[in-house]
Amino acid sequence: MFNCGKIAIIGGGSWATAIAKIVVGDTRHIGWYMRRDDRIEDFRRLGHNPAYLQSVRFNIDEIFFSSDINKIVQNYDTLVFVTPSPYVKNHLKKLKCRLRDKFVVTAIKGIVPDENLVVSEYFHQVYDVPYDNLACLGGPSHAEEVALERLSYLTVGCGDREKAQAFADILTSNFIKTKTSSDVIGIEYSSVLKNVYAIAAGICSGLKFGDNFQAVLMSNAVQEMSRFLQAVYPIERNVYDSVYLGDLLVTGYSNFSRNRTFGTMIGKGYSVKSAQIEMEMIAEGYFGTKCMKEINRHMHVNMPILDAVYNILYERISPQIEIKLLTDSFR
Amino acid sequence: MFNCGKIAIIGGGSWATAIAKIVVGDTRHIGWYMRRDDRIEDFRRLGHNPAYLQSVRFNIDEIFFSSDINKIVQNYDTLVFVTPSPYVKNHLKKLKCRLRDKFVVTAIKGIVPDENLVVSEYFHQVYDVPYDNLACLGGPSHAEEVALERLSYLTVGCGDREKAQAFADILTSNFIKTKTSSDVIGIEYSSVLKNVYAIAAGICSGLKFGDNFQAVLMSNAVQEMSRFLQAVYPIERNVYDSVYLGDLLVTGYSNFSRNRTFGTMIGKGYSVKSAQIEMEMIAEGYFGTKCMKEINRHMHVNMPILDAVYNILYERISPQIEIKLLTDSFR
Repeated sequence: MFNCGKIAIIGGGSWATAIAKIVVGDTRHIGWYMRRDDRIEDFRRLGHNPAYLQSVRFNIDEIFFSSDINKIVQNYDTLVFVTPSPYVKNHLKKLKCRLRDKFVVTAIKGIVPDENLVVSEYFHQVYDVPYDNLACLGGPSHAEEVALERLSYLTVGCGDREKAQAFADILTSNFIKTKTSSDVIGIEYSSVLKNVYAIAAGICSGLKFGDNFQAVLMSNAVQEMSRFLQAVYPIERNVYDSVYLGDLLVTGYSNFSRNRTFGTMIGKGYSVKSAQIEMEMIAEGYFGTKCMKEINRHMHVNMPILDAVYNILYERISPQIEIKLLTDSFR
Repeated sequence: MFNCGKIAIIGGGSWATAIAKIVVGDTRHIGWYMRRDDRIEDFRRLGHNPAYLQSVRFNIDEIFFSSDINKIVQNYDTLVFVTPSPYVKNHLKKLKCRLRDKFVVTAIKGIVPDENLVVSEYFHQVYDVPYDNLACLGGPSHAEEVALERLSYLTVGCGDREKAQAFADILTSNFIKTKTSSDVIGIEYSSVLKNVYAIAAGICSGLKFGDNFQAVLMSNAVQEMSRFLQAVYPIERNVYDSVYLGDLLVTGYSNFSRNRTFGTMIGKGYSVKSAQIEMEMIAEGYFGTKCMKEINRHMHVNMPILDAVYNILYERISPQIEIKLLTDSFR
């Protein structure tokens, strides 16, 4: 039976913090890479992440913090990457030791820019990590609800199902149920696409479309997602499963989703720049939209929702015009 | 080309009023059967339905009202039935003229009790209406949003696609988009089941489950719906279509849904009776649950959500226990 060994978290945001809570609840020890030393100091002093999910208390004795990614990678066997996708390359550039013997789990819901690769493919192509050592973590999971220990379902994808099961066993608790899958690529793409569709939902909400239309939008979004996944990685998958449809719904219907909020501002007439300034952060789906559009230039899948969001965000076409066209394409 | 002729609405609730608004916007004349003469008088005096969607103004000259169902059935060619399903039999009992030459459209989202038939089957078996003269109307459509002219998508199901298209053409407007389908039975069953699942969503919300779990519940609900539809009427259908999945989502995610509200009260610990008294109305899904459970006794489809809701509502088993079992069955 595969053993995950010592587990470390790479990243300091809210989803990283939620995963750290889940893992350390089982293993009683984790490594944790955070970029900023001041954050680590505050974390140690306060007993919680100073910036995210402050209500989640940690036993500091159970955590080895470091702002040196090499120290963490050298000393740990399973590395859970949970940084925003635009920054993952910068973190990895500092790496002096090799990754290919590690069990690498990506919980990053995004695409590596420039290369336009999902994160597992990036680790495989650039860092020689074999596919059997690469896993992803998906499922409908607001970090805030995990913090509150509200029942959530996570899916671990890995080509080696025994490894997926070993990591899933660590995550399983009285508030986390898990399943495993071999569809790493499909889960990663679906978690990128759902952010694009959450932006679309926000745009429509900002334009004063109602719940009736939102339901039609989500129905069409899961079909568009299904078409793309079958084209990019054609295996037998059930897109109704919670890791695909459920993750789309929790994001597309959430008023807490950064991507949906960003879309709502765009729909109300904000420019991309002013929406980003107002939100003080960048919605991951903004980058995802561009990457997915570029990937689909070679795939030629019929993706009217992606096209509309791209045209609105990057081609400055008015939301009214794009969404009007979209409504005509829907079934 | 089939012509719908003169169209009448049977029923006086909010969905009936929304459909009347849509139809008379095209035809400039409708017949309208309402049970209560005082309501008709108030409607005539006020220019709107006194009890539902009061914001929707009608031109009274375009409506022939009657509390005599025979007068309406005799004088109209297309009859749109929109009463609550528990009462449809009582309305029809008063009927002295035959129905079988009429084009009968059911917008009733429920099952005829005792017989446990979807409404189109009931019209066929008891009133000899041939299937080609029977249509149904489905789709994600809060009546309140139709009243506000927010874009909504409706699907007309009929074995005779030309008739479906003829009725769809009447409904189509700048705020209603339509499509047609031949899956009358599937659409009717799905619109009953979604009320059951909305009760389940309410129960879970009342028990303090969060959005992560709601997304898993909806993902499992659409799979349960799909299994049942394939068993009861196995044709090639796309359950992602808005008439199935979209209708489930708009009801399951709505805070305005009577079924969801009823479920929330049950989840919070109200008895069925006190929830019904508090709401001053009976949620249609309450009856739908019993009918579906009885129908499935012969079908033996794996329907854990239906079973859980039935056990809670009719066997007085505690919501905590039933939903706990349900969470273990989910994927």
